[in-house]
Amino acid sequence: MTAPDYGRAFTLWRASAPHWHAYTHHAFVEGLRTGTLPRNAFLHYLKQDYVFLIHFSRAWALAAAKSDTLAEMQAASATLHALAHVEMPLHVRLCAEAGIPEEALQSTGEAAQNLAYTRYVLEAGYSGDFLDLMAALAPCVLGYGEIGAQLAGTTGPYADWCATYGGADYQQLCHDVGTLIDGALIHRLGPDWPSLPRAQSLAARFATATRLEVGFWDMGLSPA
Amino acid sequence: MTAPDYGRAFTLWRASAPHWHAYTHHAFVEGLRTGTLPRNAFLHYLKQDYVFLIHFSRAWALAAAKSDTLAEMQAASATLHALAHVEMPLHVRLCAEAGIPEEALQSTGEAAQNLAYTRYVLEAGYSGDFLDLMAALAPCVLGYGEIGAQLAGTTGPYADWCATYGGADYQQLCHDVGTLIDGALIHRLGPDWPSLPRAQSLAARFATATRLEVGFWDMGLSPA
Amino acid sequence: MTAPDYGRAFTLWRASAPHWHAYTHHAFVEGLRTGTLPRNAFLHYLKQDYVFLIHFSRAWALAAAKSDTLAEMQAASATLHALAHVEMPLHVRLCAEAGIPEEALQSTGEAAQNLAYTRYVLEAGYSGDFLDLMAALAPCVLGYGEIGAQLAGTTGPYADWCATYGGADYQQLCHDVGTLIDGALIHRLGPDWPSLPRAQSLAARFATATRLEVGFWDMGLSPA
Amino acid sequence: MTAPDYGRAFTLWRASAPHWHAYTHHAFVEGLRTGTLPRNAFLHYLKQDYVFLIHFSRAWALAAAKSDTLAEMQAASATLHALAHVEMPLHVRLCAEAGIPEEALQSTGEAAQNLAYTRYVLEAGYSGDFLDLMAALAPCVLGYGEIGAQLAGTTGPYADWCATYGGADYQQLCHDVGTLIDGALIHRLGPDWPSLPRAQSLAARFATATRLEVGFWDMGLSPA
Repeated sequence: MTAPDYGRAFTLWRASAPHWHAYTHHAFVEGLRTGTLPRNAFLHYLKQDYVFLIHFSRAWALAAAKSDTLAEMQAASATLHALAHVEMPLHVRLCAEAGIPEEALQSTGEAAQNLAYTRYVLEAGYSGDFLDLMAALAPCVLGYGEIGAQLAGTTGPYADWCATYGGADYQQLCHDVGTLIDGALIHRLGPDWPSLPRAQSLAARFATATRLEVGFWDMGLSPA
Repeated sequence: MTAPDYGRAFTLWRASAPHWHAYTHHAFVEGLRTGTLPRNAFLHYLKQDYVFLIHFSRAWALAAAKSDTLAEMQAASATLHALAHVEMPLHVRLCAEAGIPEEALQSTGEAAQNLAYTRYVLEAGYSGDFLDLMAALAPCVLGYGEIGAQLAGTTGPYADWCATYGGADYQQLCHDVGTLIDGALIHRLGPDWPSLPRAQSLAARFATATRLEVGFWDMGLSPA
Repeated sequence: MTAPDYGRAFTLWRASAPHWHAYTHHAFVEGLRTGTLPRNAFLHYLKQDYVFLIHFSRAWALAAAKSDTLAEMQAASATLHALAHVEMPLHVRLCAEAGIPEEALQSTGEAAQNLAYTRYVLEAGYSGDFLDLMAALAPCVLGYGEIGAQLAGTTGPYADWCATYGGADYQQLCHDVGTLIDGALIHRLGPDWPSLPRAQSLAARFATATRLEVGFWDMGLSPA
Repeated sequence: MTAPDYGRAFTLWRASAPHWHAYTHHAFVEGLRTGTLPRNAFLHYLKQDYVFLIHFSRAWALAAAKSDTLAEMQAASATLHALAHVEMPLHVRLCAEAGIPEEALQSTGEAAQNLAYTRYVLEAGYSGDFLDLMAALAPCVLGYGEIGAQLAGTTGPYADWCATYGGADYQQLCHDVGTLIDGALIHRLGPDWPSLPRAQSLAARFATATRLEVGFWDMGLSPA
């Protein structure tokens, strides 16, 4: 299957990230597809994902603070709003259905691999600029899109998860974020940005974040 | 007239800010009430306020990034969303009705007093924590509430402006922000926070931001 | 007299900053040269400069935090160290000789124009990256160098001030900072950086900071 | 052996960090003491430590940017200066003697556990204030002091390492940092700070950073 087309930056960064395949074809992902992922691993993942979403929302908030144009701010603000006011409550509901009460979510200890990824993203944003933040956020947003596209049509115990990320809404979000990133690059660096030294450091940000995503799946497979 | 009750922190900070009266009873405010404010001063103010709102939105985005609890993040995110997706488009529409096209807004040069206030707020937030940011934001949010409450019922050319800030929606926002601030203080510093050294530095943040708000009105009276 | 050559970025940014001449040939500067600057204006300036130096040091600290290479970090760290451990004590000593005790310096209320400039610089650094910070710092560091070069050889009451900024040590610092900036630009954006959109936003940072420096001199002429 | 006394905050935070013993008595530490640590593990650690020191220096730079008083800024600036201009060159020299050329250090890929710790510290500092940053930095600075004190007098292949951290200079640094932290707490929160909710969140910062230090030693034992 071919990779989804989420824009120019994604295509370039994806091709140069050594761990992209390990991330998007991880045993955890395979387990979602085949339905063989142990349930306690999935529940462990859901709990960590609750903590993750909080910090991921904070990262999109930082993107709004660091935006250069009103359009960038509105895009980041809309994503933050969707995360904080739609995704988070949805996640809480899905977890409750899976037998994890909200209190258990709130008292979840943050796994080291979870800390590593979210703090890497936030620190990239604080120390760098909007582009650094986007390059560090992209593997999560767009990688889940690519994984979702791979798993579209999956049946079995994880059909819902697969339908969410493979569905039209999430795929549209990926296209929008890809467009946001491509526009932000051209706005700052011009159309030939891939030839600049800056392109290397952004690709390195993306590659490091991808590596940390592999760790996140590894963590999912090792419930405490 | 008595001051509106937007909570404990506001009551304390307001009482200790030397320029609070100069801010809330500025000649610009008087001019709005009596209708004697020159129209070109008001239009100048509206244009600067467009630039201001962008940076003010960024400050609320930063608040979401710096929040400690999901509830704080949701509150900050909701404010950001209202600013970026409701207030900003509304401001553009009101300016258009007043004869200022959107392009004129976008090309507005940022006045020094405008820069001073917004950068002070953002830097307080970046260098300090959520509380520093709230103390620096409060004079704007809650001061406009107090001014609006003073001017409620005003007729004449600026009746709309007065009705907006004196109206129930904005007054409710002020109560909500006051509650957010009081809760954030107790969450971090406990119920006796006014006795801590930290209370002095937060009050100083509020006082400095208030002083810069006086500068903003001064600027409004001096269209270039 | 020709402008000093502090490198390529300075030459470009200086040429495109509308207020550069107003800054480097301000009445305050003229007063230093001719000796006609009122002494209480100079003392007022010295007190504000004490507060300024604290925030300026913080800005160089932020530059070290945001540096991309060990060499950049060492350069920023050396500047911070010189400011915090040499310049500040020197400033305290000079003020004492001028009749301003250290306690008076520490209790100096920060003028709005002082706040405006330092917070603009710090916020540029926090919201942007190392380059944004350098573009916002440059008008101060290099502008004082250009003014110092203009005033070299000045006699009269302000001979010491002129000798400091016109002297070889400070001129060398300006060359070093110019080299740091030029290197940081090439490291990130390549040798053709002036043709990128980014160059416009960096020049705008420099121009805004220059405008705020004019405000700083204005403030110096208006002792409270 | 009793714990070294690096001040009140350290004593409290140390006592409440569940992984403190696992960190300070890790198999890596034991291996340094007994001399049984495999050499390639030590060399792996030295290379990662080079990358670590760069980000640790950036964290102290951020502390200077976030300081509240001139004394805090001077203390943070002095530490940064020592790291960037003394420790880093020393580390490069020691590595060269151990057979690792500087180019190998510069091209070291940053291990996930290294990323996790340094980005956690920096993000704590950016999102929080000076105190958050100190609580996140403390396990490294003061933990190495406690380990050094334990290992003082060690002979064998790692005698130099043990002598460095157990030596009077490093122990003095630990006392100074402990004093800086205790002073910063009292300056902001008053003498009863341990009773405030803030004390819990700072202790949690310290505990999380300690947990990530355990990961750093684990990484040291697993050369790629």
